[in-house]
Amino acid sequence: MVNKWTVGVIGAGRIGKIHIENLLHKIPNVNLKIVADIEVSNNLKQWATEIGVPKITSDVYEIINNPNIDVIVICSPTDTHAKFIQEAANVGKNVFCEKPIDTDIKRIKKTLSIVKETSTKLMVGFNRRFDRNFMRCHESVASGQIGEPQIVKITSRDPTPPPLAYIKISGGIFLDMTIHDWDMARFQAGSEVEEVYATGAVLIDPKIGKAGDIDTAVAVLKFKNGAFGIIDNTRQAVYGYDQRVEVFGSKGCVIADNEATNTVRIYTAECTNIDKIPYFFMERYVESYLTELKNFFECLYKNIEPKPNGEDGLQNVLIALAAQKSFEENRPIKISEVEKY
Amino acid sequence: MVNKWTVGVIGAGRIGKIHIENLLHKIPNVNLKIVADIEVSNNLKQWATEIGVPKITSDVYEIINNPNIDVIVICSPTDTHAKFIQEAANVGKNVFCEKPIDTDIKRIKKTLSIVKETSTKLMVGFNRRFDRNFMRCHESVASGQIGEPQIVKITSRDPTPPPLAYIKISGGIFLDMTIHDWDMARFQAGSEVEEVYATGAVLIDPKIGKAGDIDTAVAVLKFKNGAFGIIDNTRQAVYGYDQRVEVFGSKGCVIADNEATNTVRIYTAECTNIDKIPYFFMERYVESYLTELKNFFECLYKNIEPKPNGEDGLQNVLIALAAQKSFEENRPIKISEVEKY
Amino acid sequence: MVNKWTVGVIGAGRIGKIHIENLLHKIPNVNLKIVADIEVSNNLKQWATEIGVPKITSDVYEIINNPNIDVIVICSPTDTHAKFIQEAANVGKNVFCEKPIDTDIKRIKKTLSIVKETSTKLMVGFNRRFDRNFMRCHESVASGQIGEPQIVKITSRDPTPPPLAYIKISGGIFLDMTIHDWDMARFQAGSEVEEVYATGAVLIDPKIGKAGDIDTAVAVLKFKNGAFGIIDNTRQAVYGYDQRVEVFGSKGCVIADNEATNTVRIYTAECTNIDKIPYFFMERYVESYLTELKNFFECLYKNIEPKPNGEDGLQNVLIALAAQKSFEENRPIKISEVEKY
Amino acid sequence: MVNKWTVGVIGAGRIGKIHIENLLHKIPNVNLKIVADIEVSNNLKQWATEIGVPKITSDVYEIINNPNIDVIVICSPTDTHAKFIQEAANVGKNVFCEKPIDTDIKRIKKTLSIVKETSTKLMVGFNRRFDRNFMRCHESVASGQIGEPQIVKITSRDPTPPPLAYIKISGGIFLDMTIHDWDMARFQAGSEVEEVYATGAVLIDPKIGKAGDIDTAVAVLKFKNGAFGIIDNTRQAVYGYDQRVEVFGSKGCVIADNEATNTVRIYTAECTNIDKIPYFFMERYVESYLTELKNFFECLYKNIEPKPNGEDGLQNVLIALAAQKSFEENRPIKISEVEKY
Repeated sequence: MVNKWTVGVIGAGRIGKIHIENLLHKIPNVNLKIVADIEVSNNLKQWATEIGVPKITSDVYEIINNPNIDVIVICSPTDTHAKFIQEAANVGKNVFCEKPIDTDIKRIKKTLSIVKETSTKLMVGFNRRFDRNFMRCHESVASGQIGEPQIVKITSRDPTPPPLAYIKISGGIFLDMTIHDWDMARFQAGSEVEEVYATGAVLIDPKIGKAGDIDTAVAVLKFKNGAFGIIDNTRQAVYGYDQRVEVFGSKGCVIADNEATNTVRIYTAECTNIDKIPYFFMERYVESYLTELKNFFECLYKNIEPKPNGEDGLQNVLIALAAQKSFEENRPIKISEVEKY
Repeated sequence: MVNKWTVGVIGAGRIGKIHIENLLHKIPNVNLKIVADIEVSNNLKQWATEIGVPKITSDVYEIINNPNIDVIVICSPTDTHAKFIQEAANVGKNVFCEKPIDTDIKRIKKTLSIVKETSTKLMVGFNRRFDRNFMRCHESVASGQIGEPQIVKITSRDPTPPPLAYIKISGGIFLDMTIHDWDMARFQAGSEVEEVYATGAVLIDPKIGKAGDIDTAVAVLKFKNGAFGIIDNTRQAVYGYDQRVEVFGSKGCVIADNEATNTVRIYTAECTNIDKIPYFFMERYVESYLTELKNFFECLYKNIEPKPNGEDGLQNVLIALAAQKSFEENRPIKISEVEKY
Repeated sequence: MVNKWTVGVIGAGRIGKIHIENLLHKIPNVNLKIVADIEVSNNLKQWATEIGVPKITSDVYEIINNPNIDVIVICSPTDTHAKFIQEAANVGKNVFCEKPIDTDIKRIKKTLSIVKETSTKLMVGFNRRFDRNFMRCHESVASGQIGEPQIVKITSRDPTPPPLAYIKISGGIFLDMTIHDWDMARFQAGSEVEEVYATGAVLIDPKIGKAGDIDTAVAVLKFKNGAFGIIDNTRQAVYGYDQRVEVFGSKGCVIADNEATNTVRIYTAECTNIDKIPYFFMERYVESYLTELKNFFECLYKNIEPKPNGEDGLQNVLIALAAQKSFEENRPIKISEVEKY
Repeated sequence: MVNKWTVGVIGAGRIGKIHIENLLHKIPNVNLKIVADIEVSNNLKQWATEIGVPKITSDVYEIINNPNIDVIVICSPTDTHAKFIQEAANVGKNVFCEKPIDTDIKRIKKTLSIVKETSTKLMVGFNRRFDRNFMRCHESVASGQIGEPQIVKITSRDPTPPPLAYIKISGGIFLDMTIHDWDMARFQAGSEVEEVYATGAVLIDPKIGKAGDIDTAVAVLKFKNGAFGIIDNTRQAVYGYDQRVEVFGSKGCVIADNEATNTVRIYTAECTNIDKIPYFFMERYVESYLTELKNFFECLYKNIEPKPNGEDGLQNVLIALAAQKSFEENRPIKISEVEKY
């Protein structure tokens, strides 16, 4: 262990900025030394100065090749993840990488084998595992309180669709949106997925259909431990960001409901009113991003394997590919059918 | 014990009809033989026939003096309660009487002494004790689950004021409305009241003030076991019949909330909606009236003292009188100050 | 319209008794004249006398051929339903029949054609439509408050499996248990089902597997209006009878949660406790049985088609057969594939 | 307005540290220059360095007499508040001061007159007004949504008593604990208190009684606008920090419940479990401390009077003194009776 981890961040977009703020002020024993972004605008420079980033560069190798950097946090676009993880691992650095590792199974597998050979550590940013509610749910299941898990049920609905430009390149709803839910389902079930049936349609906006995607999806999973998973997604829930998890087991059931915006109820002659649930992930998951990164550094400190790790990243992409195939062929698909790719 | 209790009901007004229906169809081992009402209208006759009342009369003594009647249920106006209880007890009949026994302490005490001498049984209709929520609350307290009760808090709000004609003769809010709450407070605290501070005002309708009463009341009780009671009343809660109980103790706290009209939540882009709570006592307490009467017959069957009994009826009126005095003199009043009356 | 409907009940088992009690005491303008059961035991005779049934017989034709009977309520075993409906319709009587009409599509269709030809009325006992929570949910959807329905989600879990003897002859979980949920899904979606994917397993009790059935089931529906349905069933939820419905739409979402046993929360140093949800359908749906039958007589009175009617009965069985086939062949099945049978 | 407010903090105890962290990292346009504490230990020095405090001193006049400081945040012991506010105001500095200003009415009044004469601004740290739930409650009342407020009900219970040493010098429960609730009641009622009846007892720990205080208190307020206030306090709620507010009005009722630790419900064969509510004020009110200080700087920026201000500080102490007198004399006390002191 070093006294303080010296850290570099690659990518200072929306999610990168969250991690940078957390690294600067909220995570103990961490020394954020340098941030790299492909385009260091004046705005970004000013933001970095004000918040206290010591150095900002457009050259990512000032981080990767920097012998004084112990840990790299990767928040750059998806198509650079595998490359940077490999390069970082090859020079012995531990990596926290935003999800997904990649969308190509071969490239993910190669990346994971390099991580393994170099004995470096890799955490993949499935932050929802660190949401206090879903963690509590997981604890209850993992402790045996509800017995053997038999049905895992996930409601995961965005308040508003992403830009069409994003939808065109995202890899489709099963890869860009449901991927969080594949991870959550595995996390709660405590088992790997064997088969998936997925269906869906364009019910929100025909433009999404023209862009080659769907906006409403339903999936059923079969886990190796016998449990079933049920997931429903929509790209537009007008009432807010609807994120719920339920695990039914042989001895009980645990339900993690949405966070409330406040605890106030207003009773009038017409009805009782409660304020809308939080709008989107910045409101709902702000705390989970911090807990996630703290957990990553704790794993480094204790020299234990972080979770979710590269294998989790791989499994989640495999399920996404199987789901896509299931949707296209309208039949259940075994993970083994897509694993060989 | 007789095989079946033979029952007569005195008074077939709103509450009398509820008891009659329950006696006819829902309480086992009971034989309702006769109903008396001071004015047997054609409407009442028709209602009685349709529902299956064997006999209806305007002469109450066809019940009281009837050797075949074991039990009398009294639902006539308040000023007849004491008289009928006394007469019934004197001929050895057990009595269920609607609250209150009377508003005059001397007359109540005389009535109770006759009940005692004749070894008959008397239950007074404080039906809220038999509401499933308040019973559950009581059970939790009585079992010691929340330790020693320290604060009993009652919210008791009517949806709409009674007719002014009623307010003029009711004896005032502390006797006509809060009386249920005095009883509930004692029931939950498991102790008698020693002192009461009561205040209030006319905030809803000035006509109520002109009729000599108030429409909003707040009271603080000191119990003999050291606990405090807090009650708030209003004659008009526009959102429905608000009936809640909370008991705070040394080992925890138990809260009985309002019943919901249904369990539905509607989430929209504006807010989340829940339907209004039940409108009034006919919606909220319908079940408690049945449970109450069933309990009374169980007590008769087991030959045990029913609760709430005459002593409860007396205590509740004593507190009401003390509260009225407290309001008038703006100072806390000990029950002993009014007990001598 | 007659002044009072004269009614005969066929079948006085558990559910028959509920209807008999309701007909005797709780439904206005109804005259229950006669009850038929294949085996009139002394116990049944005594029960009938005590509750006020005027006549009880073992000969069902004393009802069917009785010119003074207007309406027949059928609660006999499933394999007699179609026969009795046909016979009743042929003599011009209106029928309320417990679900399902039959498990054979041809026989159901023949029954419905007779009902149609005779212009009699038929309601099928999918009582859950009359649960106050699910009705309220339906109202919200039907009124357009949540826009176009896109996802209908049903949680339906029994507290304990039925006897193995029943499982062996029930037709399987999709016919004996999920049938209520097929109906609920159609009721809430306001559309017919086009395709179903169903899966399941034996997770509760291997004996159920040996009896040729499963105990855990998950199904995904595609409706003609584009909406999706998701249902999960288990034969054993140890925490009680879990019955929830959720409808997600373009303008919002409506959720009908479980009824609570009471509204009490107990806060202690360890955690906060709430009592278990109601145990089973007798606790949860007692009110819906009454509302259902009242609604049936209202339809007769207004001379309008009752809902759910024979067509609903048919559709629900079709979906069950498709689900069974989907489970067996592990692929989505269109209703049209089983409709021809 | 200055480009950035330069700020000094007096007092770096528990609450001081919260403000310091917020000033350093979370409040825009603020430049924390210096912190003073009477005893600058090595621990404190190290903490200050790590968190980024530019300078720390044991001489408070390096702040008060520093011409480059615009704003002073006072978190020192209560008996220094009035003195420091006066000195700061006299050199033209704006002040945020922790509650209470003082416990002596004369000294408070003198302090407020100096603030007025010097046209400086003073906010007093009744942070609970900035809790998101109580703010939302206030908004609902202030917007007229529930009509005229008629009953304000506050539940305010600490999880555990403070050290006896503190109780001996705190001025008593009405000044050290209920003071937050006097403020909350006034905030929600939108009116000043005219009369208070307070009672209480030692129910938790006899040592508190020996230290000259009580541990359980109940108070009834009469507001100038006719509304009533009800407050209950206890120094020990074993289930956590119980902080609820309810405002009943002519058009409805608004209830702000406790924050939940998480949204998870666990259903088992025994009962349903929810985790305990947050333990104490550091968990519950962490956000309100930040919102409060942000609001103070917004007021400075907009050059408007901050609320709660010195007058609020004065009123809250007046009510506390009246409550103490009421408790001692067992009678309602008008604020005017103690105002003259």
